[in-house]
Amino acid sequence: MNVTERASLDLGTELLEARGAPKAAARLQAGVLVEAELKGHPSHGLQRLPRLLARIERGLADPRAEGRGHWRAEALYEVDGENGLGPVVAMAALARLDERVAASGLALAAIRNSNHLGMLAYYVEQVAAAGRIGVAISSSEALVHPFGGTRAMLGTNPIAIAVPTGARPLVVDLATSVVSMGKIHHYAATGRPIPDGWARDADGLPTTDAASASHGAIAPFGEAKGYGLGIALELLVSAIAGSPPAPEVRGTLDADSVCNKGDILLVIEPSAAPGVAAGLAAYLDAVRASPAADPACPVRIPGDDASRRRARACEDGFEIDSRLWGELNALRIRAPSHLEG
Amino acid sequence: MNVTERASLDLGTELLEARGAPKAAARLQAGVLVEAELKGHPSHGLQRLPRLLARIERGLADPRAEGRGHWRAEALYEVDGENGLGPVVAMAALARLDERVAASGLALAAIRNSNHLGMLAYYVEQVAAAGRIGVAISSSEALVHPFGGTRAMLGTNPIAIAVPTGARPLVVDLATSVVSMGKIHHYAATGRPIPDGWARDADGLPTTDAASASHGAIAPFGEAKGYGLGIALELLVSAIAGSPPAPEVRGTLDADSVCNKGDILLVIEPSAAPGVAAGLAAYLDAVRASPAADPACPVRIPGDDASRRRARACEDGFEIDSRLWGELNALRIRAPSHLEG
Repeated sequence: MNVTERASLDLGTELLEARGAPKAAARLQAGVLVEAELKGHPSHGLQRLPRLLARIERGLADPRAEGRGHWRAEALYEVDGENGLGPVVAMAALARLDERVAASGLALAAIRNSNHLGMLAYYVEQVAAAGRIGVAISSSEALVHPFGGTRAMLGTNPIAIAVPTGARPLVVDLATSVVSMGKIHHYAATGRPIPDGWARDADGLPTTDAASASHGAIAPFGEAKGYGLGIALELLVSAIAGSPPAPEVRGTLDADSVCNKGDILLVIEPSAAPGVAAGLAAYLDAVRASPAADPACPVRIPGDDASRRRARACEDGFEIDSRLWGELNALRIRAPSHLEG
Repeated sequence: MNVTERASLDLGTELLEARGAPKAAARLQAGVLVEAELKGHPSHGLQRLPRLLARIERGLADPRAEGRGHWRAEALYEVDGENGLGPVVAMAALARLDERVAASGLALAAIRNSNHLGMLAYYVEQVAAAGRIGVAISSSEALVHPFGGTRAMLGTNPIAIAVPTGARPLVVDLATSVVSMGKIHHYAATGRPIPDGWARDADGLPTTDAASASHGAIAPFGEAKGYGLGIALELLVSAIAGSPPAPEVRGTLDADSVCNKGDILLVIEPSAAPGVAAGLAAYLDAVRASPAADPACPVRIPGDDASRRRARACEDGFEIDSRLWGELNALRIRAPSHLEG
């Protein structure tokens, strides 16, 4: 079925407010999920909301917490997220970096104990909209097997980078797994098999069954190099944030444990030299115009498709699984009685 | 033929000193090249030295320059490399970051106009040896085609990350191309065909001929994701360092142009919380011990093989193409007469 940005945002906000989230926090958290839907990434969209609501109801996520931070050094802000909603804690940390970065040139937030941030692109887009370079990296529980291995030992360890240009910023957001666990869940929820090579089951054997894969391990992207990048980000997040490595991380996919993964947000002032930003925009246009391997598929810049999908979805609404929409609406009815009970 | 670390280091140092490099600079530059040989990466080793010597003789590389830097902001050091040797400019910049990072928590050097840094692992290893996290990123001339494209539009844009642990640091160093152009040149120099899927020729057609590939375009690693990472690093380097994007970069592979690529060095203080570094070492051991897809090939951590090769090569020497060794020795004889002429 088709729903509008407004309807989904209002429903998400209402569900979160009904569970104690302040209006601004509810709006922000719902907005991050809806933004993923608008961009055509339902794996990071509203399918995550029922679990998040359950986490709030069970005291695993505190919708009122913004996290408690201090400057560990002049440009390094350390945050205990105090089980707050991921977007609330992250945006509060970005606001602090914003105060410091003009003087320091770069500033970093190291976050522990916040809930899932959702799509990392959201945060670096905010940074780029303010004219700065944004990098976001998160760890997760063990979902990815090493290159040459079979057991889930690494997080999906996504990284997002946004760089302002004279035109639209470049925004890249990728998990270091061949696919996100959110997408595997989306395949499982819609009953589709996953492609060969994406995952292994709980016994370490290759599988195309999405449900088996969700109890097994996803392959790293890009073979040895993608594995190398993933394990480097794994250690980078742990070493800076002091959060545990993947095998000890809980609470990014369940409604049973507090969430102890780590997040890194890095903001950098770009060179203000004349012509640099305009040159980057011209460069991206030159890449778009360069010869395609298949003349029917022009060369694309990361984010181009998502941006087109978003513009269309803001006009026409987006498709959502009608069972999920029904489930969300049912949670709307249940919420008050739960809080009263 | 087999040569020792000492013999190759002495020869490299002598060749550079004979062309005007101060002893310490010559030793450092030769050491970076020999280090690549010891680790089994001849693509970044002594095969690059004849071209570098030619660059010095033609005034494209200044072996006396250390670069001119200033703090663009409290934690952001901007360097005009003044055509200095890459390792000399980079190590001078790292020394400045070292002075600042204890107070700031992180510090970044943005370098323009230095020569090729060689293997980026070298620099981040120095940072990790001092107990800090190191990240190095370089741009290069256009060598890589976009995912879905055929023309070289991106640099190989390597990134190296080193993270200290309770045991040996994790060191990851990867080009965002499926292979480095150095390795393609090494295939060409040794007359071997390259694997299918690595490259396209000057007309944009797939090729397995290394010489044709060196005039064409290398594929990005990891398909769309590797391309996404590569183009993000491309813009990141340009935006911070103010260096031009790949199609305007010259001087990383030729002896005809000054080198105008950019380099980013980032140093970050890790969390000093108890148990974090030891936990990372234990985690890496757990990954090594996790079940392998092929029982004959245990799961490896990036850097393990290079470290073993290095230890062996320091004992037993390393293999080098005898023509290359002859060429280097011939340059030794020619040098004084050239300088006198």
